[in-house]
Amino acid sequence: MRARDLIGEYPTVRVDDPAPDAARLIGSRRLPGVVVVDEAGDPVTVLPGSQVLNFLIPAYIQADPSLARVYDERAADEAASRLEGKTVGDLLPKRGHRQELPVVDPGATILECAAVMARLHSPLLVVRGGKEPLGVVTASRLLDLLFG
Amino acid sequence: MRARDLIGEYPTVRVDDPAPDAARLIGSRRLPGVVVVDEAGDPVTVLPGSQVLNFLIPAYIQADPSLARVYDERAADEAASRLEGKTVGDLLPKRGHRQELPVVDPGATILECAAVMARLHSPLLVVRGGKEPLGVVTASRLLDLLFG
Repeated sequence: MRARDLIGEYPTVRVDDPAPDAARLIGSRRLPGVVVVDEAGDPVTVLPGSQVLNFLIPAYIQADPSLARVYDERAADEAASRLEGKTVGDLLPKRGHRQELPVVDPGATILECAAVMARLHSPLLVVRGGKEPLGVVTASRLLDLLFG
Repeated sequence: MRARDLIGEYPTVRVDDPAPDAARLIGSRRLPGVVVVDEAGDPVTVLPGSQVLNFLIPAYIQADPSLARVYDERAADEAASRLEGKTVGDLLPKRGHRQELPVVDPGATILECAAVMARLHSPLLVVRGGKEPLGVVTASRLLDLLFG
């Protein structure tokens, strides 16, 4: 059993895709995040749902969430509008501050996959290699294999 | 719309539950993690799947995942056996090193929920308060609400 046998279908977004599309994809499919690929289709990083939320919230509310208590529905709509005209790339931390991409080649063993996810505290792992299609292995898939 | 209107059913485990049961639950339900509650049913922390994997992998493989390349299926079974006789509490980082529990009361607004998840980089948020039942809001649920 190798990484290539464990991959599941997983949606990707491109760095130049509209940011609201990525938010909608994470929301509608109830994903913890999406894999971001560059113009050539190479994976760049993982964009977690919490990072999208991060972009919606003004800094003064992030510092003191109790301030958000006084904001109503309209404020939530205004928060959503902060993504308008932005790309996925705009939501990412600057290069050098991005999370290291959890990645293995298709021949990685179960333990190798587990070790990379454990080290990077990542719920998912990108599998890429040469001409084989891109895929993702989740931590829960590995646990199901080991304990199911 | 308040936190109490957004909660979904979400499995919890107790700190004294057998660790393999938690691993099996995360695996079979394909969850990013589970909420850990104490003997009184109060939420203590979130146990992500990657933290369970972390416990399975010997330190020398975590430091150099390429070593895992040489381990076969039997090694994976041996890794799984490392949870035998352990409790969920044994898998958690020591008190003081645990992730701050992302938690709001049932009356929290959408923005308040989003702000707490954004600040703690958490894909989920525990909703608790007085006698109301415990629930969980996910980042993807919020994004679906804001962009769906």
